[in-house]
Amino acid sequence: MLDVAIIGGGPAALSAAVNCRQRNKSVCVFGRSLDSSLLFAAEKVDNYLGLPNISGEDMLNQFYTHAVKQGVEFKETRIKQILSMGDRYMINADNQFIEAKAVILAIGLSKSKGIPGEIDFLGKGVSYCATCDGMLYRNKKVIVVGENEEGEAEANFLADVCESVTYIPLYQPVLNLKENVQVKEGRPKAVLGENGKVSSLEMDGEILECDGIFFAKNSTPPESILFGLQTDGKNIIVDRSMATNLPGVFAAGDCTGTPYQIAKAVGEGLVAALSAANFVDEKARENK
Amino acid sequence: MLDVAIIGGGPAALSAAVNCRQRNKSVCVFGRSLDSSLLFAAEKVDNYLGLPNISGEDMLNQFYTHAVKQGVEFKETRIKQILSMGDRYMINADNQFIEAKAVILAIGLSKSKGIPGEIDFLGKGVSYCATCDGMLYRNKKVIVVGENEEGEAEANFLADVCESVTYIPLYQPVLNLKENVQVKEGRPKAVLGENGKVSSLEMDGEILECDGIFFAKNSTPPESILFGLQTDGKNIIVDRSMATNLPGVFAAGDCTGTPYQIAKAVGEGLVAALSAANFVDEKARENK
Repeated sequence: MLDVAIIGGGPAALSAAVNCRQRNKSVCVFGRSLDSSLLFAAEKVDNYLGLPNISGEDMLNQFYTHAVKQGVEFKETRIKQILSMGDRYMINADNQFIEAKAVILAIGLSKSKGIPGEIDFLGKGVSYCATCDGMLYRNKKVIVVGENEEGEAEANFLADVCESVTYIPLYQPVLNLKENVQVKEGRPKAVLGENGKVSSLEMDGEILECDGIFFAKNSTPPESILFGLQTDGKNIIVDRSMATNLPGVFAAGDCTGTPYQIAKAVGEGLVAALSAANFVDEKARENK
Repeated sequence: MLDVAIIGGGPAALSAAVNCRQRNKSVCVFGRSLDSSLLFAAEKVDNYLGLPNISGEDMLNQFYTHAVKQGVEFKETRIKQILSMGDRYMINADNQFIEAKAVILAIGLSKSKGIPGEIDFLGKGVSYCATCDGMLYRNKKVIVVGENEEGEAEANFLADVCESVTYIPLYQPVLNLKENVQVKEGRPKAVLGENGKVSSLEMDGEILECDGIFFAKNSTPPESILFGLQTDGKNIIVDRSMATNLPGVFAAGDCTGTPYQIAKAVGEGLVAALSAANFVDEKARENK
């Protein structure tokens, strides 16, 4: 079992990882590749103290090298679900389940705000993970809204389980869909429900009836990754120790709010790491 | 008039300075020399992301160089007093008065806790600055408690103004006192008062009567630098934007609380800088 699982791959995640290692905790960073960080594309950064006038790519590489030197492990994957198991957390990494005593969320800025009703019906017909929740919709009608090609894999998975799958791509081209997935053009407007459950998806001038809606997004809203996590709009709510409302879960970086800056992310990553390390140590003392 | 005055000289102050310059604000760092930072003595630092395995001295020099490149001004002095002038602040830099629209306190950890009664009688007979408050004690009896040789200059200044000056050195040797300053050995125990004003200083088994007590300390308690600043024990109270309770006054680094770490200080310095820059911009818009 890991001491600390870190979700993300930008400066906050890497700073948290380095500082967990400094406290001699085992740690794995679950994230997408470095070039998926917004920082990667920055032509020049000049306000992170000590590294003047550097490209975002060079900075990320220096950060990554530092973390590797400290013995940080990496797993390239997008985490869509973390389950609380009472005294530990279970990270669902592409259906490989990894246990951790504490979690640091450094998942960056949630770019897509969602449509009306989306978050309200989360767990009541709305899902962000077909492999997590698909079985709940066996022999039912589902819609998959895809912001990127990962949506196609979600739709194909559901096509083996559900009565019907409608796929609404928000990108082009769509290349790899199974035959029994029906493609529908247009933009979703709102998730509609009846008796507290999803009943349909509103499109421009059209209502599509369904039992469930899966969203495959470029970034996943934090409360959908970890059930019960308190947020304020798109920000995860943290205290000065970077603790969230869930025991053993900490957050750092852009996902906790403005300013969206490297030094803030690195500082919060450090604070979250020390808090997570303390949490792990206290649990160990309690169990003695 | 300066846009932002930064008090301190460690990583929080330098990060704040770099980021004020990024926002095109005029800025001066008022601090002691770099080698007075606790970081200077660190043999090896390995947990500030991007600069692995570096000495504290090298790190501070890199930070300083970065700030100089950005056009940050420096003034080597210890600030003991900042006065609120309503719409701006007046920095007392060795009796040279410099105005600023906003202030960032990055004054590090207050190492001396003070003795009982010390903070209670601040401004009612207790002072940390002879040149600021000396005239209030003309022809009165004062005591100067010196943690370092700066106390001797304080005592000598007061010797020209007051009826009597007693000097209690907490260090050795004492070299440069005027003849009419009386030296007293021993350790102060408590500041005592009557009717809300200082009446005497309690020593081991002895009470020294006086009208005022001046403390020359290795580090000055924040609330004595800036009247009305809210603290919680030795920490300056800040919100997530690093704002203190005083408008236009922000704080960053060790003075806001644990963890006492570089990345936390650098991150908070950035946040304080952006908040101070916003404050200055908003004031400018209001005055248009």
